[in-house]
Amino acid sequence: MTENRELHPKVEKSFELIGKRWTGLIIYVLMSGPKRFSELSETIPDLSRRMLTERIKELEEHGVVVRNVIPDRPIRSEYSLTQKGTELGKILGPISQWAESWVKD
Amino acid sequence: MTENRELHPKVEKSFELIGKRWTGLIIYVLMSGPKRFSELSETIPDLSRRMLTERIKELEEHGVVVRNVIPDRPIRSEYSLTQKGTELGKILGPISQWAESWVKD
Repeated sequence: MTENRELHPKVEKSFELIGKRWTGLIIYVLMSGPKRFSELSETIPDLSRRMLTERIKELEEHGVVVRNVIPDRPIRSEYSLTQKGTELGKILGPISQWAESWVKD
Repeated sequence: MTENRELHPKVEKSFELIGKRWTGLIIYVLMSGPKRFSELSETIPDLSRRMLTERIKELEEHGVVVRNVIPDRPIRSEYSLTQKGTELGKILGPISQWAESWVKD
């Protein structure tokens, strides 16, 4: 009943990544398509711009998010999920159905 | 491309729950079956007993984890996932495959 398996360090690292406030939500929001910084900020109004900057930086360092430069005038950039990020987003996506079923307003 | 949907408060709450350090990992570990406090503590050695106590309390308050009293002598207790917790665990479980594919040692 209490099968005692060792935790793989990779699993621990993964949960450390999504176990930071806002990280999962940023990935979730990016699953609907690339977003400019301002769009991310507007979609998650409770998240300060300073914290959003920090989280995006971490996600870029983890290879989960990438910044793309759009050659418009004026030049602008947007953030999107890498393949690594998209695979994680596919796992986290169903949380919205879970939320609908189980979380109280 | 940048379909701007509003975030449902329930979705935000759910990511707030798993976006606390150790929470996802505790749920993941409990997916392998009920665990005594000491077993949880041993399985996640980097997590202090004080923090484990706090996280379990929060998960109980969210109806994700339940404490079961085992009528042994001496009496003992163990923690297991509720149905709500099990459904969340099923979503988070595949993170181990993602970790295997994408996370560096």
